[in-house]
Amino acid sequence: MKKISLLGATGSVGLQTLDVIREHPEHFSVVALAFGENIKTALPLIHEFQPKLVAVKNKQIADQLSNQLDSHIRLVYGVEGMIETAVHPESDLLVNAVLGSIGLEPTLAAIKAGKTIGLANKETLVTAGHLVMKSAAEHGVSILPIDSEHSAIFQSMQGQDRSAISRLILTASGGSFRDKSRDELSEVTIEDALNHPNWSMGAKITVDSATMMNKGLEVIEAHWLFDMPYEKIDTIIHRESIVHSLVEYADHSVIAQLGMPSMLVPIQYALTYPSRFELKQTKQLNLWEIGSLHFQKVDMQRYPSVSLAYHAGKIGGSMPTVLNAANETAVQAFLSGKIKFLDIERYVEMALDQHDRIQMPDLETIEAVDKETRAFVMKQIM
Amino acid sequence: MKKISLLGATGSVGLQTLDVIREHPEHFSVVALAFGENIKTALPLIHEFQPKLVAVKNKQIADQLSNQLDSHIRLVYGVEGMIETAVHPESDLLVNAVLGSIGLEPTLAAIKAGKTIGLANKETLVTAGHLVMKSAAEHGVSILPIDSEHSAIFQSMQGQDRSAISRLILTASGGSFRDKSRDELSEVTIEDALNHPNWSMGAKITVDSATMMNKGLEVIEAHWLFDMPYEKIDTIIHRESIVHSLVEYADHSVIAQLGMPSMLVPIQYALTYPSRFELKQTKQLNLWEIGSLHFQKVDMQRYPSVSLAYHAGKIGGSMPTVLNAANETAVQAFLSGKIKFLDIERYVEMALDQHDRIQMPDLETIEAVDKETRAFVMKQIM
Repeated sequence: MKKISLLGATGSVGLQTLDVIREHPEHFSVVALAFGENIKTALPLIHEFQPKLVAVKNKQIADQLSNQLDSHIRLVYGVEGMIETAVHPESDLLVNAVLGSIGLEPTLAAIKAGKTIGLANKETLVTAGHLVMKSAAEHGVSILPIDSEHSAIFQSMQGQDRSAISRLILTASGGSFRDKSRDELSEVTIEDALNHPNWSMGAKITVDSATMMNKGLEVIEAHWLFDMPYEKIDTIIHRESIVHSLVEYADHSVIAQLGMPSMLVPIQYALTYPSRFELKQTKQLNLWEIGSLHFQKVDMQRYPSVSLAYHAGKIGGSMPTVLNAANETAVQAFLSGKIKFLDIERYVEMALDQHDRIQMPDLETIEAVDKETRAFVMKQIM
Repeated sequence: MKKISLLGATGSVGLQTLDVIREHPEHFSVVALAFGENIKTALPLIHEFQPKLVAVKNKQIADQLSNQLDSHIRLVYGVEGMIETAVHPESDLLVNAVLGSIGLEPTLAAIKAGKTIGLANKETLVTAGHLVMKSAAEHGVSILPIDSEHSAIFQSMQGQDRSAISRLILTASGGSFRDKSRDELSEVTIEDALNHPNWSMGAKITVDSATMMNKGLEVIEAHWLFDMPYEKIDTIIHRESIVHSLVEYADHSVIAQLGMPSMLVPIQYALTYPSRFELKQTKQLNLWEIGSLHFQKVDMQRYPSVSLAYHAGKIGGSMPTVLNAANETAVQAFLSGKIKFLDIERYVEMALDQHDRIQMPDLETIEAVDKETRAFVMKQIM
């Protein structure tokens, strides 16, 4: 029985993590569970999974929830509550499925506590990859990626000669606007952006997918997760989202992971690794039913966000933190109707331009840069 | 330094094996080398690679060759010569690249001598999979597949949970006649059949690719090599020959091996396994240059050879030997202009129909069935 701590239980990945756990009650249980404000969604899940610890966003939510919980469930809140969830003494594995850089501190705490990490929170690696991977190495902790691309790469590296990897190739659907020209993008709406062709995901990631900043962040994530120079990380547009990513080796052999689009597969793989269990909720891939798979080069003029991410990643230091914080702020502004779609990348570029890189930033510096960048972008927007 | 014995040195796979060895003189050398009659091709290779032992088809060829060899090279011939090559005391690995069931005895001898086997001779497993795999298990010997499909499957199984494999999916180009209807096949010529769209291979394999008996034999080979029931082995037509085969797991995750079509990759992987070396002679796969990959179901009416192979494989015992011997004889007759293309499968079916299966045949029985089947088919043709 593997005992799991879950951060971000009511989000898209969190709910699907619980779907996987529900399918294998003989293998997994939930010992601690954190969510933000969504009591309505969380309450039946708490009753179902009976965690020993529940963490929520703040005292106000905790107060609303407290009289609805069994008395033996410990209720905590805030960042401290997330950290307590992450390091729960009975937990074997932390699934970090929160959105944004708020996921960083609990990840670092769980690594120090020796927990295996299932990481769906890409900002953790984007903003602090150097700290996270160093600490994971020091504590002998495995970081198991939970998103389709990095899980695909991770799966395609198993049992292979890692010294012979010549290239990681991240596939991208091209997002909800992939058939639109740059000109057509200027007036797209929030509703348009949220209508992703292949994947059902949260709003922020769906917008990131449309700008392809998502892919840019994944490039930086892959750099840290797999210790690969940016020159060896490539991206490719693949409309059907069937080939989830590929690894090329020195002999020009390429290993890839494929499947019908579903987050359940990478989530379950992180939970069962290195074993695999049945996963009845997903569909079998029959390539003759798909018929054909298409691939095209990523046009960096069409998707400047990818180019901005490579740029920030190669400069390194605090620059990826700026990229991420500026992007989070700009996407939020877009989702609130304050800026247009094409403004997102414009504000990200402005934020990168005004920042002087700090080398090897510590956690405090990262948090300061994150805050400064958000304030900078907010100020530009208003 | 890995020392290699090579059977079938002047054939397509044999020559490419020497190409791989030539690229890595610091890693590989040839200690023993066998070929049939092609002295003209073999002689410069013998001078180049300086094996300690050379085996040829018969005494006549040996006599022609003897005065052209350095005196320190031992020259042998016949089946005994092939066996001596296979079990050479200094050899670490046997690459068996001969065509046809003549490859069986040397393989069994090499297994008994504890040599790792790089197997390009599919008839070895088709006719005597039960003997070969049992002996390999008893002697703790690895059988490393050298053909693109089985190598792809083998590569896609590394580091994975083998107990969770739910399906092997062998890709097939569809051969030189894939765009022809059954009616159009009745009058195709030898030249048409040898014009394979993707792969440069020997004549026999190219015809087998056109009938898709090649894929049928590979299904039986996969059954033995990976200990998989026939129900878990699938085939799919993939025109571009970029995805070389796939392995599906219980979680519906599919791992695949891809690359530009080249036999050099599976050959080198068998030589370097589990490491990978550079392979400058092959091209990098850039999927955006390929653009699209196509897949379609194998129509068993259109390709009855595949169906015959599943049928023979499932019945088992001596039946796959009949399938293989009848096919070899019929393909030879087609290449000699004695029968038409569609007659090949007709003679194979006749041979299967007239044979009473012998369960668990020993080597002697397999050889007897092989001879009887060839005689039967010859008699029908004449």
